Amino acid sequence: MADAERIRRVARRVADARAEGNGVIVVVSAMGDTTDDLIHLVKEITDNPPEREMDVILSTGEQVSIALLAMAVKELGVPVISLTGAQVGIVTDNVHTKARILNVDTARLRKELDGGNIVIVAGFQGVNDCNDITTLGRGGSDTTAVALAAALKADLCEIYTDVDGVYTTDPRVVDEARKLDMVSYDEMLELANLGAVVLHPRSVELAMQYGIPLHVRSSFNYNLGTIVKEVDSMERSLVVTGVAYDLDVAKIGLYDVFDKPGIAYKLFKSLADEKINVDMIIQSATRDERNDISFTCSRGDLKKALAVVQGLLPEIGANGVTSNDSVAKVSIVGAGMVSNPGVAALMFEALAGEGINLEMISTSEIKTSCIIKADQAEKAVRTLHKKFNLAKNIIS
Amino acid sequence: MADAERIRRVARRVADARAEGNGVIVVVSAMGDTTDDLIHLVKEITDNPPEREMDVILSTGEQVSIALLAMAVKELGVPVISLTGAQVGIVTDNVHTKARILNVDTARLRKELDGGNIVIVAGFQGVNDCNDITTLGRGGSDTTAVALAAALKADLCEIYTDVDGVYTTDPRVVDEARKLDMVSYDEMLELANLGAVVLHPRSVELAMQYGIPLHVRSSFNYNLGTIVKEVDSMERSLVVTGVAYDLDVAKIGLYDVFDKPGIAYKLFKSLADEKINVDMIIQSATRDERNDISFTCSRGDLKKALAVVQGLLPEIGANGVTSNDSVAKVSIVGAGMVSNPGVAALMFEALAGEGINLEMISTSEIKTSCIIKADQAEKAVRTLHKKFNLAKNIIS
Repeated sequence: MADAERIRRVARRVADARAEGNGVIVVVSAMGDTTDDLIHLVKEITDNPPEREMDVILSTGEQVSIALLAMAVKELGVPVISLTGAQVGIVTDNVHTKARILNVDTARLRKELDGGNIVIVAGFQGVNDCNDITTLGRGGSDTTAVALAAALKADLCEIYTDVDGVYTTDPRVVDEARKLDMVSYDEMLELANLGAVVLHPRSVELAMQYGIPLHVRSSFNYNLGTIVKEVDSMERSLVVTGVAYDLDVAKIGLYDVFDKPGIAYKLFKSLADEKINVDMIIQSATRDERNDISFTCSRGDLKKALAVVQGLLPEIGANGVTSNDSVAKVSIVGAGMVSNPGVAALMFEALAGEGINLEMISTSEIKTSCIIKADQAEKAVRTLHKKFNLAKNIIS
Repeated sequence: MADAERIRRVARRVADARAEGNGVIVVVSAMGDTTDDLIHLVKEITDNPPEREMDVILSTGEQVSIALLAMAVKELGVPVISLTGAQVGIVTDNVHTKARILNVDTARLRKELDGGNIVIVAGFQGVNDCNDITTLGRGGSDTTAVALAAALKADLCEIYTDVDGVYTTDPRVVDEARKLDMVSYDEMLELANLGAVVLHPRSVELAMQYGIPLHVRSSFNYNLGTIVKEVDSMERSLVVTGVAYDLDVAKIGLYDVFDKPGIAYKLFKSLADEKINVDMIIQSATRDERNDISFTCSRGDLKKALAVVQGLLPEIGANGVTSNDSVAKVSIVGAGMVSNPGVAALMFEALAGEGINLEMISTSEIKTSCIIKADQAEKAVRTLHKKFNLAKNIIS
């Protein structure tokens, strides 16, 4: 939510949904710059804030939003109540600033719904088993919404965003990008993981797990957006559904690592212990008893990851470490890829044709990702969008 | 708390108190303009916010403060934890925006103190028995502090403010105003009720009830302030301890009210039902079977009070209603007044000598208050401060 005018518009919309006869729970995030403002306050005090206290302060952003939205809905004459994460009973683990939801108590929600109230819930937050406030980190508000929908076995979870839905690729990069009317959970998951920021992969994962259909749509208009749901095989006919790219990628390479059991385990366990999310991993034998290992992480984690790697050098025996934070990941996603083995090759061909060098490649059943130079990312996206005819809504 | 610099100074102070070997609980209020900013946000949405939602939004102000102060204390290497009113278990009644504390659960506080933590508690807030957030209204943070001190049987409750302590009168009005080293609960209570804004009467009342000594002192320096405690009779020797004034006063007069039983009850019960705090009440018989009734309330309640009065006119039969919000209350307070019956007369004499007309008079064992024209308030305060020699620390 951005400002008073937008809050009023959301209130109108919420009241409309109620008027259609639905029980309505609304999950809101913090307004506009609130979170940045709070982080700014913190930075005036310390560069190294305790994460528990970060959660105490950050969670106020959503608390302000729920009260304001509840007031705006009430102003329309509709019964409404706001609830914080703690009041709902959203119980999380104890990992402050990146907590995961363990359980949602539905008693209070059901009581308020049964009482005829629209319920406005603060997204992004919960409490751990000590009743300490936790926040869910990235994608937290969407994740809260899906978790509540799952706990209450809701018919549908609508995700309001600032774009009209899920696109074949980023419309800011490719003019011909087309909104998808429907996309399967697993395709959406890959797209989300690959940098299509409209939905965080956590929320997609949760929706898939509980079979909650999502409707990703704009908060600025009443257009239908993109439905994310389980899609049966008849409909899974597009070979490539979308092209995603992600600039928040850094690459670390280790050369001449000992080739013996347990080395990779030691490396990636140590990175996981530091909560560093490693994305692509490639290991290749280069010469006798020596390997090269490369992996990617977010740019923000690069420094921390390099520190972990440096600390392990004696144990893993690497002769060299390189890093590069001027790379990007470009991916094609499509449920049809699994039965069309030549698709990855088409991708490599198209990129090679534009002189784009592939630094790393990673594939799954429904996507192929390449690490390339960051400044070639947009060209790569345009090339792939054209190559796979994504501007046209054709069933191949 | 005002800004980052002040937060750091408070943190230093808190750490010092801990270093002296004390278990320390700190109750904080919202920073500088936070509350005003939140109210401004609300006003953009509605002129008539539901009070429950007001509490949800207002309570975030203190939540931001506790997190920042905890971070600043942690930065000094001292173990610390912040707790919201809900987390402490400050249970209140259900009167949103003006809740009263019913009970304080000490389990979490004791656990954190026993664990060696300084505990930073959000003042001004609690939860009702439905786990809904409530705020305590005026004086809420001081009241929280005293309530925690009482619940934990603390040795002392320090109240940090922007002045050096309790003065014989407002130093902005009277240059010779003198800081009191010690004042009794009941004198402080009268002073607080009479407009000496340094402490809210609620907190004084609670301290008196539980016998918690208060130390009212400045957050800007380490000077000793004013101790508020039970004072034995030997020390209660100053006839007049202080002069207070209050400009937040409005007066309503009803003329020719029926003189029959139940009229006053009906009037003041109706005002109480609307949560209007009536201060002074004067009733005088003017002619057969008719009375005049005058009373005062805060200026903010005047409109609401007049509406109540108008609605009751048929029942109470008043022939006229007047109101005036350009009045002030000037009072002298002193535990010695009870045994010095001439003190009130000295007050009236001094004011008459300055041509100040008394519109209403009210007395108790330890104070005498007069309603006068608002624009004469400062002159009255200076006159009375001089009349009773308050600039000199003499035992009369």
